[in-house]
Amino acid sequence: MKAPPACYVAAAARSLKPLFDPASIAIIGASNDSNKFGGRPIRFMKEGGYRGRIYPINPKEKVIQGLAAYPDIRQAPEPVDLVIVSLPAPLVLEQIKACADARARAVCIFSSGFAEVGGAGAAWQAELTRIAKASGTRLVGPNCMGMLNTASRAVGTFSSAFEHGWPKPGNVIVVSQSGAVGSHSLVLLRERGLGLRGWVTTGNECDVDVADCIAFAAEDPETRVVVAYMEGCQDAGRFLAAVSAARKNRKPVLIMKVGASEVGASAASTHTASLAGADEVFDAAFRQFGVHRVRTLEEMTDIASACSAGVYPTGNRLGIVTISGGVGVLSCDTAAAHGLDVPPLPAATQAELKALMPFATVRNPVDTTAQLLTDHSLLQPMVKAILDNGGCDAVMVFMSSLGFAPRIMGPFKDTMARLREAYPDRLIALSIMSGKADREQLESLKFLVFDDPSRAVAAIAALVRFGRAFARPADRPPPTLPAAARAPASGTALSEHAAARLLADAGIPTVATEVVASADAAVAAAERLGYPVALKVASADIAHKSDVGGVKLGLGDAEAVRHAHAAILASVAGKAPGARVDGVLVAPMVQDGVECILGVHRDPVFGPVVLCGLGGIFVEILKDVSLRIAPFGTDEARRMLDELRGRRLLDGARGRPPADVEALVEALARLSVYADRHRDRIESIDINPFAVLPRGHGAMALDAVVVPMPRQPPG
Amino acid sequence: MKAPPACYVAAAARSLKPLFDPASIAIIGASNDSNKFGGRPIRFMKEGGYRGRIYPINPKEKVIQGLAAYPDIRQAPEPVDLVIVSLPAPLVLEQIKACADARARAVCIFSSGFAEVGGAGAAWQAELTRIAKASGTRLVGPNCMGMLNTASRAVGTFSSAFEHGWPKPGNVIVVSQSGAVGSHSLVLLRERGLGLRGWVTTGNECDVDVADCIAFAAEDPETRVVVAYMEGCQDAGRFLAAVSAARKNRKPVLIMKVGASEVGASAASTHTASLAGADEVFDAAFRQFGVHRVRTLEEMTDIASACSAGVYPTGNRLGIVTISGGVGVLSCDTAAAHGLDVPPLPAATQAELKALMPFATVRNPVDTTAQLLTDHSLLQPMVKAILDNGGCDAVMVFMSSLGFAPRIMGPFKDTMARLREAYPDRLIALSIMSGKADREQLESLKFLVFDDPSRAVAAIAALVRFGRAFARPADRPPPTLPAAARAPASGTALSEHAAARLLADAGIPTVATEVVASADAAVAAAERLGYPVALKVASADIAHKSDVGGVKLGLGDAEAVRHAHAAILASVAGKAPGARVDGVLVAPMVQDGVECILGVHRDPVFGPVVLCGLGGIFVEILKDVSLRIAPFGTDEARRMLDELRGRRLLDGARGRPPADVEALVEALARLSVYADRHRDRIESIDINPFAVLPRGHGAMALDAVVVPMPRQPPG
Repeated sequence: MKAPPACYVAAAARSLKPLFDPASIAIIGASNDSNKFGGRPIRFMKEGGYRGRIYPINPKEKVIQGLAAYPDIRQAPEPVDLVIVSLPAPLVLEQIKACADARARAVCIFSSGFAEVGGAGAAWQAELTRIAKASGTRLVGPNCMGMLNTASRAVGTFSSAFEHGWPKPGNVIVVSQSGAVGSHSLVLLRERGLGLRGWVTTGNECDVDVADCIAFAAEDPETRVVVAYMEGCQDAGRFLAAVSAARKNRKPVLIMKVGASEVGASAASTHTASLAGADEVFDAAFRQFGVHRVRTLEEMTDIASACSAGVYPTGNRLGIVTISGGVGVLSCDTAAAHGLDVPPLPAATQAELKALMPFATVRNPVDTTAQLLTDHSLLQPMVKAILDNGGCDAVMVFMSSLGFAPRIMGPFKDTMARLREAYPDRLIALSIMSGKADREQLESLKFLVFDDPSRAVAAIAALVRFGRAFARPADRPPPTLPAAARAPASGTALSEHAAARLLADAGIPTVATEVVASADAAVAAAERLGYPVALKVASADIAHKSDVGGVKLGLGDAEAVRHAHAAILASVAGKAPGARVDGVLVAPMVQDGVECILGVHRDPVFGPVVLCGLGGIFVEILKDVSLRIAPFGTDEARRMLDELRGRRLLDGARGRPPADVEALVEALARLSVYADRHRDRIESIDINPFAVLPRGHGAMALDAVVVPMPRQPPG
Repeated sequence: MKAPPACYVAAAARSLKPLFDPASIAIIGASNDSNKFGGRPIRFMKEGGYRGRIYPINPKEKVIQGLAAYPDIRQAPEPVDLVIVSLPAPLVLEQIKACADARARAVCIFSSGFAEVGGAGAAWQAELTRIAKASGTRLVGPNCMGMLNTASRAVGTFSSAFEHGWPKPGNVIVVSQSGAVGSHSLVLLRERGLGLRGWVTTGNECDVDVADCIAFAAEDPETRVVVAYMEGCQDAGRFLAAVSAARKNRKPVLIMKVGASEVGASAASTHTASLAGADEVFDAAFRQFGVHRVRTLEEMTDIASACSAGVYPTGNRLGIVTISGGVGVLSCDTAAAHGLDVPPLPAATQAELKALMPFATVRNPVDTTAQLLTDHSLLQPMVKAILDNGGCDAVMVFMSSLGFAPRIMGPFKDTMARLREAYPDRLIALSIMSGKADREQLESLKFLVFDDPSRAVAAIAALVRFGRAFARPADRPPPTLPAAARAPASGTALSEHAAARLLADAGIPTVATEVVASADAAVAAAERLGYPVALKVASADIAHKSDVGGVKLGLGDAEAVRHAHAAILASVAGKAPGARVDGVLVAPMVQDGVECILGVHRDPVFGPVVLCGLGGIFVEILKDVSLRIAPFGTDEARRMLDELRGRRLLDGARGRPPADVEALVEALARLSVYADRHRDRIESIDINPFAVLPRGHGAMALDAVVVPMPRQPPG
């Protein structure tokens, strides 16, 4: 991962405008057969009434589907915004060159047979990338399904997804690496009645990738919601810049990233490497940058639909009004599972509700019983009472299958319209089974509408998470490194002492140690450092010192130190005869600390990733770790700690004093800055244990392994 | 909880037959106004064409809605199967007595105003219970919505849920304590196209409860699936007998039990009590007895629908055929999250598939690309290859929005029908977006059909869990207790020494300890037990011995023992001057054990509940515990351990030898039998720590607290 140019987002947005909003479309490989891939876009656009200009390109035909055809893209009457290429792979390259010559602004290449098949295909794709870079013509695909603009009815796709129905124009952009998933999502969103701003599939991503499309969406005034499907990420820097821009502009980004169950392939040599699987790193990056990772297609549709209402509360207090006490309790359970609070209403609000409906249970959930179905005129004042004085950030109303009773549904919708007028910006969700038309009518009033109350609650929770991410004040910047901070020398792993010095120079507190050459020197060092001390063999050749009798702990006096010094040298000489021994390391014993593990691991996509976990069983048995992409500051480090299941241990659980969390947070942020600064020089860092002392006493690395990059960088 | 009579299930089933399949229905409070509660059942039955006899009961009218009315239930022409009572609460009791006199077999009481309002209502309800017990007339409600039989069109309900559509007859029984949830579920299942065997709401449960209805369903030959909603459980013995009978008869039971988020009210005095919240105990009971707990209404509908196909694989290997590689990977993720395996297909099967479709990815998931949509004749041989030779227990086929293309959907359904003929008993799920009619047609062929692939995978996983629960061989019976096992004397908490003796007598291995009265005796005891030893003050009055300086650990010789003995007595005399001191307890130090916590807690619903957790942070920070209803045998104890997140620690993680799991399992089973035997005498037991030594060396309680029931049992 490298940082993209500062102007990346704006430039990507500008360059993709012709892709998303083409005023003219040419089709290379245009066919008179309206079922062929090269014929379908023309048919779809003619049927849909595309508002732009269509230029079929075909050297053999004068007219294609009733439109004047041109023999070559260079002979089209204008430099077109978007060219569709539907040709066999071997013919593509020449045509792309022609597009670049003709100053086409964007090209969608349907054709497969490129990088995904290897060989000549891969070479062709590399050449496509080169042409895109050189010419400025943006290339989409190859091996993609193209694009769609619902407002202008620009159809640059052969997907048959919308043959059986046209998605509404709206404010959601959908980007999918996979054509099939993109196509399926199009049907899902259409059936859900969701309005689409644009739809693009990126396929092999020789040039335009998901990040570019998110960057466009972030800057596009007509886009309010971004939905993406991705299988991998070519350029993490651009991706993170794009999602950051979207968050800055208060646009929620939902991403489905599959592959969570894939077994990590690398034989892991360190904790960090074994715990920071590729999918866990994506997960951490999404969390860090405020992206909502969706786990099912249904969740994608639900949350996108909820987002298109555009209301993002920053508080998590939910008021529930229900005609069924049981569903009220069920919804509380779901709310708790999703991190929402269902607080008791203030006494005055309860009294207000009781006055409206003496029968009701009014604590929250407010159970009106089925009476509300027959007399829903009470619904409006009840919801008003909760919104005005209930201290709630959102309200959910459960009305069962009300929508199947047209006699009641009509007036109910009127009531809801009046409620919306009174509260144009409040988040109100309705759980009502109904027909599609009724649902869409209520949704057009910016209500969330779900058949299932649990899905409504989950959607509200997602909006609250976005609301909080949008409202978060800017983090303090990452700390700066001390002037002494330097990269490790390339080569093999550093000795414990060298690793400690390197980290100390980078500003990470490290236990003071000395390497000594004799028993006398060991005693002198122990007296300087203070008893009790630990002695360890100092050798970069010995990875597991305990296994060769190279460690003695808790030495309380000079005699014990002398004895241990001799024992270590004798044992190591016997058990690791070939190892180069630099001496014996003397370190003070550090007690009273909460032992943590801090690590850095180089992720192939995101570069240096920082890991934090509590020591011992938390990491080894429970895999309870938290990851972040480097660099970050102390605010992010604090959020990182809050994800640990064992977090409470740092607060002084089990009779211990609270630990110095600020020292830990500071060390994590520094480590991230250091790892980022020397991203090309560091393979991994494992600080284990990192002792976090009682509050006010700081924290320190007690042992560390630093592995520099090999002398010859791979690839 | 007490054990129900052996014949309970059969008796309940017999007595509820007239409720579920009434041949005659009388309505007390019958009304000519077909919108009133007392008028609706008659209207519904007339409209629906009820096949039985209807007797309106009304002292003032000769004819009700065109039917001959009777002034009194005792004047009905026969003892009726089912009486509906729709009267104000104060009038109900007299009519119920009349029903009993008239030998009515079952009565549904709609009326509210009983136990749920307290006062006179509660007294009336108690009287209802008495009448039911004395007469044998089964009473449903009060405060319920009655019943429905879709096959005979017996409608003993005022629910308007099916005014807008009639549920199909089928094999699913729905029981709901809540009328509103029951009514809503009726609409959900109808919309899902699910066939209903029967529907009953139990309301206040003065007599018939959810357990009784499950017992009926367990024995009823027409029922294949049981769906229940419950808020509480009056009689756990009957409930567990009923769900056990259902499992024995291979009928899945799905239960929605709400209230998971309720804060436990009791100020907990022991680990077990604080960790075994009421909801956790329900959860454990459901797991122990093979009940699937559903967490959302949608999950309820999904799994019920999947179950009505009646195919329950015992293996968890899933084959996936998909037209989208992305959805294939997504489905793998979902499968992994639900405990299903998506194994690579055998090489020969892969070759077979490759021969059919050279383009396809054939490892599993099998990605056919969109080609399968245009040429789905290949689907049948591909699925056949997987079913015949793929080593899979179930297959899921993802076909995107195929159902919206009628041109393809027609032949696809024919293909599916042929496939079903060839494989009548295999579990095949289709993820296809389609209209309701197409879906129901495919479902009638016993395919699972879901729009969303993740929901299809979740449903398959639920069927596998049922399949395994049904196929599980009978557990070995719980162990028998030694003859010496006895109840604790009632009164206050036992001293450590007394508790240890009690548990040892019950066959639970306990560290040998001695209570001594002098320093000399302490040394003698230490020499018998072996150094190092621990000394602790022996006093039933001191709960936290460490806090008063009452514990000294790791004493290695006689001098240390003497010193500790004096120090303990001096410190306790100073810090707990009022405490009665029985002497000082001497115990050997036990090392090398994995420390666990074993506990017993008296649950108000299920009686003694046994808890197991790993010691230290696992319980204190992570609440990582497993619960079971007592009594149980070693097989269940082993399953109990398998639920612990830290389970691996017992297998020898972190360089330790594997622990003696069999000794732990044996101790848990014995503890459960002991707790069950003396369920009325034991308030709680905490064994903490229980040291599980390396394999072959057993396990032993190192400290225990036993709290007997107070002398005067509450209530």
